[in-house]
Amino acid sequence: MQGSGLRADGDRLKAALLDLAAIGATPAGGVTRLSLGDEDRAARDLLACWCREAGLSVRVDDLGTQYARLEGRDPSLPPLLIGSHLDSVPLGGRFDGPLGIASGLEVLRTLRDAGIAPRRAIELVNFTNEEGVRFEPAMLASGVLAGRFEAGFVHDRRDADGRRLGDELARIGYLGDRANRVGPIHAYLELHIEQGPVLEAEGLPLAAVDGILGVQWLDVTLTGQAQHAGPSPMAGRRDPMVAASRIVVALRDLVLEYGPPAVANVGRLRPIPGVMNQIPGQVVLGANVRHPTADGLEELGPRTQEMIHRIAGQEGCRAEIELVWNIAPTRFDPALVDMVADEIGRLGVPARRMTAGAGHDAKYMAEIASSAMIFVRTVGGKSHCESEAIEWDDARLGADVLLRTALRLAG
Amino acid sequence: MQGSGLRADGDRLKAALLDLAAIGATPAGGVTRLSLGDEDRAARDLLACWCREAGLSVRVDDLGTQYARLEGRDPSLPPLLIGSHLDSVPLGGRFDGPLGIASGLEVLRTLRDAGIAPRRAIELVNFTNEEGVRFEPAMLASGVLAGRFEAGFVHDRRDADGRRLGDELARIGYLGDRANRVGPIHAYLELHIEQGPVLEAEGLPLAAVDGILGVQWLDVTLTGQAQHAGPSPMAGRRDPMVAASRIVVALRDLVLEYGPPAVANVGRLRPIPGVMNQIPGQVVLGANVRHPTADGLEELGPRTQEMIHRIAGQEGCRAEIELVWNIAPTRFDPALVDMVADEIGRLGVPARRMTAGAGHDAKYMAEIASSAMIFVRTVGGKSHCESEAIEWDDARLGADVLLRTALRLAG
Repeated sequence: MQGSGLRADGDRLKAALLDLAAIGATPAGGVTRLSLGDEDRAARDLLACWCREAGLSVRVDDLGTQYARLEGRDPSLPPLLIGSHLDSVPLGGRFDGPLGIASGLEVLRTLRDAGIAPRRAIELVNFTNEEGVRFEPAMLASGVLAGRFEAGFVHDRRDADGRRLGDELARIGYLGDRANRVGPIHAYLELHIEQGPVLEAEGLPLAAVDGILGVQWLDVTLTGQAQHAGPSPMAGRRDPMVAASRIVVALRDLVLEYGPPAVANVGRLRPIPGVMNQIPGQVVLGANVRHPTADGLEELGPRTQEMIHRIAGQEGCRAEIELVWNIAPTRFDPALVDMVADEIGRLGVPARRMTAGAGHDAKYMAEIASSAMIFVRTVGGKSHCESEAIEWDDARLGADVLLRTALRLAG
Repeated sequence: MQGSGLRADGDRLKAALLDLAAIGATPAGGVTRLSLGDEDRAARDLLACWCREAGLSVRVDDLGTQYARLEGRDPSLPPLLIGSHLDSVPLGGRFDGPLGIASGLEVLRTLRDAGIAPRRAIELVNFTNEEGVRFEPAMLASGVLAGRFEAGFVHDRRDADGRRLGDELARIGYLGDRANRVGPIHAYLELHIEQGPVLEAEGLPLAAVDGILGVQWLDVTLTGQAQHAGPSPMAGRRDPMVAASRIVVALRDLVLEYGPPAVANVGRLRPIPGVMNQIPGQVVLGANVRHPTADGLEELGPRTQEMIHRIAGQEGCRAEIELVWNIAPTRFDPALVDMVADEIGRLGVPARRMTAGAGHDAKYMAEIASSAMIFVRTVGGKSHCESEAIEWDDARLGADVLLRTALRLAG
């Protein structure tokens, strides 16, 4: 096959990652590059410059999503799309998103340098607002491509300071044309850090990702009876803190019944008023449960709600539950996942398959195109924090898999 | 005995309570009257006016504590002290403190109206800063009388805005002379709302209080491993939220072993960073445990700490525990408690005895004088909230017990 001996340039990939990491760099080694802020503009400008230097044609659509196209021998064929995102969470890491962008750029640079024109075009994509931190919800731009959101809805999203997403796109010069959106897509490939500890624990650099866990987010308000803690005997208390605590533990026990990769956690929990010597009148908490199959999630979610009501009742409290998000699991195209796994194996690396726990743009892209992801081992499993790290050799291996899979897909 | 047929005037008592409740009244029927604020000054001024009208001699000491003295037939005898406090928590109730002040005033008004001069003087006292909300810690003024604090320490306490207690005393005109402090005391009696649900549950209006639970306040920091919740398998997690939740439940179970009136609670709990899809790196919580005996508290406190370390370890977390307060239980003078119980019984009411769960100025006074308290039934057991309420008939009964006990003590 044409180009089958090609390898990514690890030094060039590392240099691109370090250049991107300098934009919005934090003192502790992380990055704060919120979507459509000045740092996001600077990173986008740098990416566009690199792509034009590589002879790619660069365009921006009405959602601010950037595309850089390596033309194919048959321009009429739907392109292969590869990419990720450049926005970060506050005090986030250097690799969540940029690793996929830089690896995609490295693929196109390598093909260009080798003078290889694939049969179908390959487009590098940088999706707007993947993280969903500055503007909610997450993955707005890929969601529009999948028909989940209207452009007007996306433009009207506002950040915590009331600034409109559409206005911010215009302010940073990235409000492009709707006609620039990618059309029919042959396939979508996204390389990303794992953001978890599994690959490191198993001593593996890469995984072929076969899907994304579905998730239900529950906002729970437990109402009991506020009382001065000292004069209130244990027997008559209706303490929502005890109810909430039993729920946290019971949720852990419940999800363990389902086995990996199902997970659950309570990340937010707030007693009201939250003072030392008072039994709080209310506790509000946010729970989420994740499962790889739709059937599993549709069982685990309601069982979680039943458990919450049961425990609240046992503690003399009342539970109100709001199902804030109910996102079905994603199953990537098995044939494409097999192809990624095969390319990992051809590099002499065990072809681990795993299911992603967090959302990615690949979730929405999988609704309109054959899609898959490549995961790269994450040091300590840490992500969304300044100490997020990878091994440079793993990044090069990942880029090689992306390159070789892209070549097979683009022909 | 002289005056044994005397009864408090329930209408006059209610009127005084409603007048005090109007000062710092909140729309929902409560009171915000923080120590040494303008509302506290107005309440103090009204109390002083009432006392002068009743022919009492009024004075203020260097801690702002007000005294109103009904002279005795033998002025050389140490006085009987009766009283409580006029400051409130934010959005607090109308009776926590003022009930004891108004009842004491009612006792002196009744004696004055009846032309009765007891053998020893009776002084009504309004202690500065009982609540300890604006200036920490609580019960500063009675603590000085007990030798627990120096006046300079108290004057240098600062509120959240940096204002000095001594400066605020001067600002509102209540920085009096050290010579005005009460000297040797024959006994101290404090009438207060129960602030708990026990009397209401038992259908009783009053109780003789035999002591105050000791309390240990523990600030606990649980450190685990922050991780993105989706990609982190349950098995390897070190989730301080699970550890904290198990601790809340285990603390409840532990204190139940000790039986009433021992109590424990967790009123503060905060995950850091506290976002939905992240396992927090830390959880900080505040636990307190209360027990009626020193031996019990010295067992329960360390057992709580062992339990916290054990559970933290089981969850792969590290616990740091700071013993913020370690306040020994108070046992009131049994003879005086018997006398209060006897006077309750003489009104035809079952003489319930109970141990107070919350701190009161009587705690410090008990260190320097024979002391006891009278509790009045609290509607719904609610206190430190705007809906705090009592039955007016209970208030009159309580004032009667205070009056009759005071007469026995003052002779």
